[in-house]
Amino acid sequence: MFENQDRTNLEDLGEFGLIGHLTKNIKLTQPSTVKGVGDDAAVLDFTGKKVLVSTDMLLEGIHFDLAYTPLKHLGYKAIQVNLSDIYAMNGTASQVTVSIGMSSKFPLEAIEELYEGIYIACEKYNVDLVGGDTTSSKQGLVISVTSIGYADEADVTYRNTAGEGDLICVSGDLGGAYVGLQLLEREKQIYLENPKIQPDLEGKDYIVERQLKPEARRDIVELLKSIDVKPTAMIDVSDGLASEILHICKESDKGCNLYEDKIPLDPMTYETAREFNLDPTVCALSGGEDYELLFTVKQADYDKIKFKMDITIIGHITEPSAGCNLITKTGNVHALKAQGWNAFKKD
Amino acid sequence: MFENQDRTNLEDLGEFGLIGHLTKNIKLTQPSTVKGVGDDAAVLDFTGKKVLVSTDMLLEGIHFDLAYTPLKHLGYKAIQVNLSDIYAMNGTASQVTVSIGMSSKFPLEAIEELYEGIYIACEKYNVDLVGGDTTSSKQGLVISVTSIGYADEADVTYRNTAGEGDLICVSGDLGGAYVGLQLLEREKQIYLENPKIQPDLEGKDYIVERQLKPEARRDIVELLKSIDVKPTAMIDVSDGLASEILHICKESDKGCNLYEDKIPLDPMTYETAREFNLDPTVCALSGGEDYELLFTVKQADYDKIKFKMDITIIGHITEPSAGCNLITKTGNVHALKAQGWNAFKKD
Repeated sequence: MFENQDRTNLEDLGEFGLIGHLTKNIKLTQPSTVKGVGDDAAVLDFTGKKVLVSTDMLLEGIHFDLAYTPLKHLGYKAIQVNLSDIYAMNGTASQVTVSIGMSSKFPLEAIEELYEGIYIACEKYNVDLVGGDTTSSKQGLVISVTSIGYADEADVTYRNTAGEGDLICVSGDLGGAYVGLQLLEREKQIYLENPKIQPDLEGKDYIVERQLKPEARRDIVELLKSIDVKPTAMIDVSDGLASEILHICKESDKGCNLYEDKIPLDPMTYETAREFNLDPTVCALSGGEDYELLFTVKQADYDKIKFKMDITIIGHITEPSAGCNLITKTGNVHALKAQGWNAFKKD
Repeated sequence: MFENQDRTNLEDLGEFGLIGHLTKNIKLTQPSTVKGVGDDAAVLDFTGKKVLVSTDMLLEGIHFDLAYTPLKHLGYKAIQVNLSDIYAMNGTASQVTVSIGMSSKFPLEAIEELYEGIYIACEKYNVDLVGGDTTSSKQGLVISVTSIGYADEADVTYRNTAGEGDLICVSGDLGGAYVGLQLLEREKQIYLENPKIQPDLEGKDYIVERQLKPEARRDIVELLKSIDVKPTAMIDVSDGLASEILHICKESDKGCNLYEDKIPLDPMTYETAREFNLDPTVCALSGGEDYELLFTVKQADYDKIKFKMDITIIGHITEPSAGCNLITKTGNVHALKAQGWNAFKKD
């Protein structure tokens, strides 16, 4: 990917040289950032607000495969995955810290690509990069991001506050990131068997982007504020719809009915799942990495959201003894099970 | 280390099972913690204070060697390393998030040991563990910690505010962590050559502890407050005294004179450095990992600190054109160079 003449060795640059190089163009834009990169800690000011903090770690070989993940996309995704958690609290993301561990054999230009994606995401989502750590890794690329945000106390939305009768809503569509991953994995295998065959992703842009370049749903948080709807509970869809709704129900001590025919699927997700002999509903329930927002609202808010293009009502919250159920297209009732991504599953 | 009958497989427990297991005994103690582990993000309240955020990543094979690092110590150290950055801002640490990547072949009992050290550090230093991430790693143990703290605006102490004539002070003693590491590395080599020979660390407890179980200097921050001294600049000693004082001077646009005979060395550090044919002063200047606080104070504060046992005045800040100098015991003047730990050095 990088020709020798374009290479700058990280070893020659050193840690402080690298940090200086990577952070020299940082522009701080957030009123809450008092001091960013360049001291022992960032200094932030959230007078009158609650502070939200979330963190995620992405490891090569577990969360991403550099065989088909452009570094710029990876940097972008690492930020999105984290911002998504702040939005899932109904908050505004304002800062991130980014720690990177990478082989000293990586050329500087590769790290620059990674940071380019990070900076693009920060700029687009109005967050300041205020700190981090860079180190060499003997073990592949390691990315750890902490996101920081804020919200008025009255706006903070937890998982454990869904009420009986509340409508269950989800933004966007589901299952695409998982089906996109299947496609990328297939093309990788074909390539490994015969490097002369070019990957065939023609016409599959949407689901490939869902996997490689997800967008956290800040717009949904803003939309809900603009129509004066406060969700009663909210979570982001990182592990699959089933796992997430079970979190809300368990934490809220409630049950739920989800309707299979209401689950929003993009036609490309549907068709491609079928090509892989996968059940599209299962992809939505258990696939994960969609980074959509799953939330509950009071029935009284139904009129405010019913015509919002990007929000789908997929069920309702019930009393706990009713359990958590999926009502299939044929009217059968199945108990929902979390079969989402298990970070410790056997290979 | 762990017999088979004591093993609980991470694979069987799953990610949420593991998180539940590891966090079930968390006690939140900080008034600023509104919500800890268990939602998309932690919720914190720092009304009227500046918020401090810092993050560090520790990678197996780079920052620690499991051949001689007990996991409990490693967990403890991972927290200390991060809290040290908050104290270096003259703040109070109040929360941490901890992300761990580890092989799914690790037994649960190993992770429990790691977390035991984490929890002991949190309890001792009055910080709440409020979030994190656990994931499997194909490539060794990965630990990423973000620490969060607070300070009154007037108390926050940056690196770039040292003034000409200010006294340069350091807490505790220096070089011990580096010499301790040399000792551990030597014993590891002896063990690898002949596993029947037991490691000989007799009488070396202090420097071994300096390496394996450092203590962040919260007490110094509290001491300075109690005697009404606000440092004019402060940084923690993670990369060695030379690297840190150069940071302060560069950021403050000043020079400095450091006096070799003032640099505090523990006798065990001195003797053991000599055993290894190392210059003890170089160990202090370039060794790193001491996690002491290096700070500057106005000359007017001299009387307040001169008899403080755990603070040593080692030099003073000069005009920038004078450069950054070490005055040796024989009266020679050497320009200080940062030869601290380089995360990207060649092996």
